[in-house]
Amino acid sequence: MKYPSNIKKNYKSQINYKNRGMDLEELINEACKYYLENDLAVIYKKPTPIGVVSVDYSKNALITKAFFKEPSTLDYNGIYKGKYVEFDAKECHNKTSFPLNNIHDHQIKHLTKIIAHGGICFLIISMNSNYYLFKGEDLLDFLNNEERKSIPFDIIETKGYKLDYNYNIGIDYLKGIVDAYKELILNEEKN
Amino acid sequence: MKYPSNIKKNYKSQINYKNRGMDLEELINEACKYYLENDLAVIYKKPTPIGVVSVDYSKNALITKAFFKEPSTLDYNGIYKGKYVEFDAKECHNKTSFPLNNIHDHQIKHLTKIIAHGGICFLIISMNSNYYLFKGEDLLDFLNNEERKSIPFDIIETKGYKLDYNYNIGIDYLKGIVDAYKELILNEEKN
Repeated sequence: MKYPSNIKKNYKSQINYKNRGMDLEELINEACKYYLENDLAVIYKKPTPIGVVSVDYSKNALITKAFFKEPSTLDYNGIYKGKYVEFDAKECHNKTSFPLNNIHDHQIKHLTKIIAHGGICFLIISMNSNYYLFKGEDLLDFLNNEERKSIPFDIIETKGYKLDYNYNIGIDYLKGIVDAYKELILNEEKN
Repeated sequence: MKYPSNIKKNYKSQINYKNRGMDLEELINEACKYYLENDLAVIYKKPTPIGVVSVDYSKNALITKAFFKEPSTLDYNGIYKGKYVEFDAKECHNKTSFPLNNIHDHQIKHLTKIIAHGGICFLIISMNSNYYLFKGEDLLDFLNNEERKSIPFDIIETKGYKLDYNYNIGIDYLKGIVDAYKELILNEEKN
């Protein structure tokens, strides 16, 4: 046999196979798992906030009535090179602009606070078959200076950092963080 | 009237009233809220992980069957002075030692990773009517060097950082972080 069994011969077809049908969140969860297993970062999706109304303790604490709560923070957080990282995943099916009603007011407040405290905070936007890391700072800039209710795609494309899909990793957003937050990361590495 | 209405005259009795019946988690949640409102730190309790089994979409997405999952990380995380912070609250009713079965193996693994990545990670232990910040580093030290299944109280008392209860704040654990992680915090302030 020419190749050891762990080398993938049909690389391209496997990419397509694996990527097909996986939504943005799944591709990010894949990356989180990869980073964790390879000790590159510790970033988790937060549990979905749920309000529990009633529990049946006779059935091993089975929850019998509960409801989904609206999240007031972003979906993912954790640590990378000592820095606090938090972000949200947003799938955008509109091809010309990203509607800002995708982001709740309290999420904007939260993102503003995280940035003020020196954290890395951004969105991962899936749009027009690409993935972009869009910095929280650029989002706030847009909100403060524009009256529009959506971000035109050319701003996402220009200001955003395009993220690679990698067969082994999923969406390689750490590479995007290194690009987008060079100074913060360098400062941290000096310590 | 001698005092403006916002000055509490019955300070002591109000402390007792407020503190009475509040468990450790509530006192920490109070502090998180105080820090958030006063823009000192952004630290939240993570939502309880719940596995959703069935949802009735005809009733506004009411969850009709779900179960509590075991957490694999610690309960609280967030950012303080640019640093990643994560901790867990542990109430200990035993007066002589803190049983280590209070902490799951995957939580120990997680804590080890957070420390390796430069994060601040600890337990807040309520024991013998006091609150202690016990550093993750000291916990790992103990686990690696001792065969015992519980940490004797004198080690908690000696290595731990005693936390103050403050009427306005709750358990003032940020002060404890400043004490326990002086160097990390100073390094961050230089940047």
